[in-house]
Amino acid sequence: MRALIVHPPTPSAHLVERPAPVLGSGEVRVRVLECGVCGTDHDIVEGQYGKPPEGSAELILGHENLGRVMESGPSVSGWAPGQLVVATVRRSCNACRFCRSGQSDFCETGRYTERGIFGRSGYMAEQYVEAPEYLVAVPEELRPVAVMLEPMSVAEKAIVEGQRALDRKEPTPGYPRTEPLRALVAGTGAIGILASLILRLRGYTVTAIDRHDASTPAGQLLQVMGVRHVNAAAGTSALGSDRFDLIVEATGAIALDFDLLGLLAINGVLVLTGIPNARAPPIPVAAGALLRQMVLANQAVVGSVNANRSYFEAGVRDFTEAYRRWPGLLERFVTRRRPLEEFVEVLGHREGGAIKNVLVVDASA
Amino acid sequence: MRALIVHPPTPSAHLVERPAPVLGSGEVRVRVLECGVCGTDHDIVEGQYGKPPEGSAELILGHENLGRVMESGPSVSGWAPGQLVVATVRRSCNACRFCRSGQSDFCETGRYTERGIFGRSGYMAEQYVEAPEYLVAVPEELRPVAVMLEPMSVAEKAIVEGQRALDRKEPTPGYPRTEPLRALVAGTGAIGILASLILRLRGYTVTAIDRHDASTPAGQLLQVMGVRHVNAAAGTSALGSDRFDLIVEATGAIALDFDLLGLLAINGVLVLTGIPNARAPPIPVAAGALLRQMVLANQAVVGSVNANRSYFEAGVRDFTEAYRRWPGLLERFVTRRRPLEEFVEVLGHREGGAIKNVLVVDASA
Repeated sequence: MRALIVHPPTPSAHLVERPAPVLGSGEVRVRVLECGVCGTDHDIVEGQYGKPPEGSAELILGHENLGRVMESGPSVSGWAPGQLVVATVRRSCNACRFCRSGQSDFCETGRYTERGIFGRSGYMAEQYVEAPEYLVAVPEELRPVAVMLEPMSVAEKAIVEGQRALDRKEPTPGYPRTEPLRALVAGTGAIGILASLILRLRGYTVTAIDRHDASTPAGQLLQVMGVRHVNAAAGTSALGSDRFDLIVEATGAIALDFDLLGLLAINGVLVLTGIPNARAPPIPVAAGALLRQMVLANQAVVGSVNANRSYFEAGVRDFTEAYRRWPGLLERFVTRRRPLEEFVEVLGHREGGAIKNVLVVDASA
Repeated sequence: MRALIVHPPTPSAHLVERPAPVLGSGEVRVRVLECGVCGTDHDIVEGQYGKPPEGSAELILGHENLGRVMESGPSVSGWAPGQLVVATVRRSCNACRFCRSGQSDFCETGRYTERGIFGRSGYMAEQYVEAPEYLVAVPEELRPVAVMLEPMSVAEKAIVEGQRALDRKEPTPGYPRTEPLRALVAGTGAIGILASLILRLRGYTVTAIDRHDASTPAGQLLQVMGVRHVNAAAGTSALGSDRFDLIVEATGAIALDFDLLGLLAINGVLVLTGIPNARAPPIPVAAGALLRQMVLANQAVVGSVNANRSYFEAGVRDFTEAYRRWPGLLERFVTRRRPLEEFVEVLGHREGGAIKNVLVVDASA
């Protein structure tokens, strides 16, 4: 089968022929339809991140995936050939209690693996095999957007984490919330757009900032969802005196994180999902006022990474609800689909203003 | 009656005669025994903080308090003369749902008042009157330490906030926690010592850092409670590779906050209780690595301020349990008691190494 391989930490990407994986008795074989490309893929191709499986020098790239069931091993039942499926990314360390209870997104040994990223083959290949516990069935009507279920799961977890932090002071007996919560989403790539969608479904008022005017694909989708779009290319002062109960950061821009902290309302929560460069030089931070405000206003900052199966399932539910609420919208979430053969162009540069670029592995269905 | 007044924002402190407050029909009159002195009191005396009641230029100082019931208004029952009581500090804004549901520590208008601090008379006077809903009855056996119930309530809330952030990933069905959680307490003033006490009662292993050797009063108390003490005067590198699930910061030192962030374990939570100087100059922060770690390891930072009545009640329970567990220990928490007349000396400088200095208003009982 064809497979897109990389050799971390060497900058690399090659389309090669490799044997199809052997199907284990308890596994399902999946034909890959398409894979999304995200910043982590770019980082790996550039040699900044990623790790091949133990004992190997090469890694099959790709973690955002969509496929159809081909066949099941003899001890697996219930997976009909042709069923649309998305596989989760992180795999258990087999040691800590989080991994053993299905929450490997909170793995506390750090010895997890991640398909297509860290120590385990990914999905940019014609086929993969996987145990059913890591496969999420997707309804056929979600076909156009289902390749974005993995980033959707990351957004779902981030928002649950933020809501938990907001809800730590609930309930207020006899005095429920009456005003909608005010959310700010920083960044309008895939995570930012998907977070905006989820927050709108949850009844938040939502403002989204990026460094573009409203004419981008993202700007147009935000408008349909009733999200206020603000071009913050000149800084967050464009938001004036607005303050927010929940801020979802999806850029990884270090200085912006501190600006966002200053935009929190009393009791507000900032959720960080963007992954900053660890080697960035120190920056000057007026930390006294920010930290003082965090204490005096009971504010919180929460980092959130990855997502376990339950968040993929939440993503299926929310995509389904969004299909009903905004007909025709989700079909526009994928900015561009290109055949796998054009991987050099798609992986070779980071495209500002795109929501999601997708490599099509099998265009037949 | 004698009262210690200040004139914020003018640096000031005067012991004066003022009329005793008038008892309302729904109020209790309390004779003040003693008041603790904390950093906020120093800030107010130095003119950096505090606000007199509306329409007045003077504020009676003091928020850490202990007294005995003198008499009750005609519509109050159940408060026997002589009963030991501690009054809470913050008063409702009468508008937001948090204040209206007894959680004014989460007031979301910011228009709360605080006795002895912000817009409402404090307790450094011979008497005060208060509605019973703001009074917490204290068992007689807690007399020696009860003046520290207010800082205890602040530590109780901070730890609940930290535990809530830790517990956001619970439960792990079938896989309960088996190892004790590892806590680090930064600072061994009143909040740090009280937080250490609470964490030991909750079964955490506890390390406490300050800038002193173990010979201070704090160092000796920590030893009795089974807390490891580390002198971090030369920096947190004294902790080596140790990492912590919960860190309680109780210093307000800005650069230290970032050092502590780097000491969090995977899924760890840093609770900030110290109040930094808002006008401190910017400092260089190697934020890329810290923020990246927050995301990749699901870490959280939570600011916590003040405490509602429920945390004063938790403090009474924990002090009572600590009396049983460490006989003779709590009697040593107050470093020094001085008569109110010596306020100039006590309020005039911040004493490093002391846990709690107390001004005695009425030494008769």
